[in-house]
Amino acid sequence: MPKKKGLTYLDVAESWPRLTTADRARRLKQLPPEAAHEFFFDLSAADQAEVLVMLPPAERRLWIRLLAPDDVADVIQAAPSDQRGGLLALLDEPTRAEVTALLAYSEDEAGGLMNPRYIRVRPDMTAAEALGYFRRQAQERSGRDTPAFAYVLDVDGKLLGQVSLTRLIAADHAESAARLMQTDVVTIPEAADQEEVAHLFAEHSLVAAPVVDDKGRMKGVVTADDVVAVVEEEATEDIQKLGGSAALDAPYLKTAFHRMVRKRAGWLSALFLGEMLTATAMAFFEEEIARAVVLALFVPLIISSGGNSGSQASTLVIRAMALGEVRLRDWWRVIRRELAAGLVLGGVLGSIGFLRIVLWQMVSPIYGQHYMLVAATVFCSLIGVVTFGTFAGSLLPFILRRLGFDPASASAPFVATLVDVTGLVIYFTAASLILRGTVL
Amino acid sequence: MPKKKGLTYLDVAESWPRLTTADRARRLKQLPPEAAHEFFFDLSAADQAEVLVMLPPAERRLWIRLLAPDDVADVIQAAPSDQRGGLLALLDEPTRAEVTALLAYSEDEAGGLMNPRYIRVRPDMTAAEALGYFRRQAQERSGRDTPAFAYVLDVDGKLLGQVSLTRLIAADHAESAARLMQTDVVTIPEAADQEEVAHLFAEHSLVAAPVVDDKGRMKGVVTADDVVAVVEEEATEDIQKLGGSAALDAPYLKTAFHRMVRKRAGWLSALFLGEMLTATAMAFFEEEIARAVVLALFVPLIISSGGNSGSQASTLVIRAMALGEVRLRDWWRVIRRELAAGLVLGGVLGSIGFLRIVLWQMVSPIYGQHYMLVAATVFCSLIGVVTFGTFAGSLLPFILRRLGFDPASASAPFVATLVDVTGLVIYFTAASLILRGTVL
Repeated sequence: MPKKKGLTYLDVAESWPRLTTADRARRLKQLPPEAAHEFFFDLSAADQAEVLVMLPPAERRLWIRLLAPDDVADVIQAAPSDQRGGLLALLDEPTRAEVTALLAYSEDEAGGLMNPRYIRVRPDMTAAEALGYFRRQAQERSGRDTPAFAYVLDVDGKLLGQVSLTRLIAADHAESAARLMQTDVVTIPEAADQEEVAHLFAEHSLVAAPVVDDKGRMKGVVTADDVVAVVEEEATEDIQKLGGSAALDAPYLKTAFHRMVRKRAGWLSALFLGEMLTATAMAFFEEEIARAVVLALFVPLIISSGGNSGSQASTLVIRAMALGEVRLRDWWRVIRRELAAGLVLGGVLGSIGFLRIVLWQMVSPIYGQHYMLVAATVFCSLIGVVTFGTFAGSLLPFILRRLGFDPASASAPFVATLVDVTGLVIYFTAASLILRGTVL
Repeated sequence: MPKKKGLTYLDVAESWPRLTTADRARRLKQLPPEAAHEFFFDLSAADQAEVLVMLPPAERRLWIRLLAPDDVADVIQAAPSDQRGGLLALLDEPTRAEVTALLAYSEDEAGGLMNPRYIRVRPDMTAAEALGYFRRQAQERSGRDTPAFAYVLDVDGKLLGQVSLTRLIAADHAESAARLMQTDVVTIPEAADQEEVAHLFAEHSLVAAPVVDDKGRMKGVVTADDVVAVVEEEATEDIQKLGGSAALDAPYLKTAFHRMVRKRAGWLSALFLGEMLTATAMAFFEEEIARAVVLALFVPLIISSGGNSGSQASTLVIRAMALGEVRLRDWWRVIRRELAAGLVLGGVLGSIGFLRIVLWQMVSPIYGQHYMLVAATVFCSLIGVVTFGTFAGSLLPFILRRLGFDPASASAPFVATLVDVTGLVIYFTAASLILRGTVL
C-alpha cells in the first residue's frame, strides 16, 4: 500500500456514509483522478446517480461515460425521474441504444442485471485471435472489470460454448475456439427473476453466466460480483416483509423518519384491523368468561402459542421457497409434513401447559376444584391451536404465491393475526365441551 | 449446446435433488469424465463429501485431488467426523499441509473461505513473466477456475497491489508489475467474519479480494462465486432464527422430520415457558376482569399490537446490523428514533381502536354506559404498549450483540413474548387509573 499523501480511496470510503450529497461530490473531486474513478465505480447505483446530479454538466458527461452500459442503466433507474432524459442524452449514440434496450428489461430480471457487452468469438477463430479481442477490450475498460470468458456464437448469435481467458492463455495459439470451449454451460433465460439467477450462481458457484433468449441467442453476461449485491438485497426485502413491514428499499438509518413510519404504519394498521376480530370473538364468548374468569387467564398463552408455531412454519416454508427448495407443486408434501409437526409440537406444549396448571394448583389453588378439567381444556386447545397455526402458517405462503403475491408477505405478524381469532374459537369451543356442567 | 447423446450435465443436475446417495454416485459415473468432473466441482461441499464417501477408495483419491485446497477443506468439514482423517490421507503431501492450515480457521472466517493458492509476482517482474504464471496455473487447473488477478508481493510477502489478467494481456510485455498494478486494493483481514466479507464484496462489487494478516502479508484469495453462496446461507440462518426456530442448516425438505421437530420444539417450548408469565399476570388482574369482563375482550388486541410493533422494530434493526448499516455504537440514535416511531405508531393504532369502540357502540351497545372511558383506556394502552414494543424490539438486538449472542435470535416470537406480559401490565394499569370508580 502506498504511503498516505493527501486523501485516499479508503479515507473517502470510511467517511462516505456520513457525508451530505454536496460534500460527497466535493470529496470525490479531492481524490486523485484514478482513485476517484475507482471509487465512483464501486458506489451503488443510487449513490452514483446522486453524485452525477451534483456535478457540473461537463463533468457529468465525463463520469457517466466511464460506466459500462448495464451500470448506466442502473444509474438512470436510480435517478429522479425528471433527470433521466438528461442523463441518457449525455451518452454517445451506440451506448444510448444499448442502455435504452436494457431499460426495457425489468430491473428484477436477468436482462436487467446483465452487461450487454461481452467478448464474442466465432467457432473457427484461433486462440491467438480470441486473445486479441480480450486485449482490445482491456484497453477500453477499467482495471477492475475483468471478463473471465469469451463466448463462442454461431452466425445466428446462438451460444455454442464458452472459453475461459485462462484456458486461452494456456492453449496452443493455433487451436480453434470450437476445440477449446466447454459446451456444458449453465445459461440464464433473459426473463429469469433475479432470485433465480442468484440460486444458479450459488448452486453452481459461477463466476459469470451468459443470458440467452428463448431461441438460445446470447444477449449478455451476468457476473458474480453483481449477484452478491442482489442476494443481499433480496434477503433484506424478505426479512423486512417477514418482520411485518413493507420493504424499506434503503438503509435503515438513511430512511427519512416519516417515510419509515408510513411504511410501517400501513401494515401495522392492517394487522390491527384484522386483530380487531379477536375483540369480536371474545365478545361472542363474553358469557363464558363472566361465568368462569379462570378461562380468561389462559387466553394470551393459547393464542400466542398458535401465533408462534404459525410464524415458525411460515418462515421455514417462505425461505425454502425463496431458495427454490420447495416449489408450488410440493404443497401437499409440505402441508402433510407440517400437520404432523404441528401435532407433535402441540402435544409437547399441551403437556407443558397441563403440568404447569396441575403443579401450580398444588402450590396455590387459584384454579378451583375442577382444575383437572381446566388443565385438560388447555391441553386439548394447545394441540388444536398449534396444529392449526402450523397448518395455516405453511399453507399461506403457497396461497400467496399461487395468487401471484410475494410469499414473504406471510409475515410472522400476519400469520399470528390470522391464527389468533381461530385460536380463540378453538379454545372456547374446547372449554364449552369439557367444562359444560361443571365450571360453565 | 451439443445434441443429447447419453446423459449430460444438465440431465443429472435436474434429477440430482431427488436421488439417493447411492444413486448419485452411480449417476455421476454415467456422465462422460469431463462433464462428471465439472458436475462434481459445482456441488455443495456437503454433497461432494457424500459422493466421495460412496466411491471406491481408488476413485475417491482421484476425485478429491481434483479439488482446490479450500474446497477440500470444506469437504472435510462437511464429512462425518470419522471419515475426515481418511479423506485427508488421500491428499499429496503439500496439499495436505495447505488443507490442514485452512482447517485451523473457523469455517465462518475469511481464512476459512479463501483459496491459499493464487498468482504472486514480484514488483520488478515484467508483464510477459507474469503472464507465464497465469499460463502455468491454467494448465494445472480446471476451465472454470479462472483467477482474475495476480498479486504483487514484496520479499516479506506483504501485498503491494494487484494486476488484473486483462490488464496484463493488454500491457506492453516489458512493463513491470509495479507500474501496472493498482495499489488501492480492498483487502480482507484473515479473521474477518464471513458476513463482513460479504458486505465488502457487495459494497465494492468485487470479483476477488486478497486476504491479509495483521502485518499486511497476503494469505490467500476470496472470490465472488464463493461469496454468493455465503450470503444466501447467512440470510437463511437469520431468517430461520427470526421466524423463531433454530437454523435448520439443511434444505427444508431434506431435513429429517424428527430433527426438524426437535429444532423447532426447543424454541417453541422456551417461548411457551416465557408466555406462561401472561397467565400469572392475568391471574394478578383476575378481580378486575371479574368486575369488568369487557376488559378481557381487548386483551388479545392489545398484546398482539405490542408484539407486532416489537417484531417490526427488531427485524429492521437486526437486518440493518447484519448489513453493517447500524453498529453497536449507534444504539442511542436507533433507540431514540424507535421511541419516536413507537409514539406515532401507537397514536395511529390507538386512534383506530378508539374509533372502533365508539362506532361499534352506536351499532350494538355491548360496551356499557361507560364506553367512552373504555375507549380511552384502549387508546392510552395502545400508545403505551406499541411504544414499549417498539422500544424493546429495537433494544433487544443491541443487548444480544453486546452479550456476544447473535442479534437474529431476537426473533418476532421472542420479542412478542417479552412484550406480551408488559402489555398486560400496561393495559390493566391504564384501566384501573381510568375506570376506577365507574366500571372497576
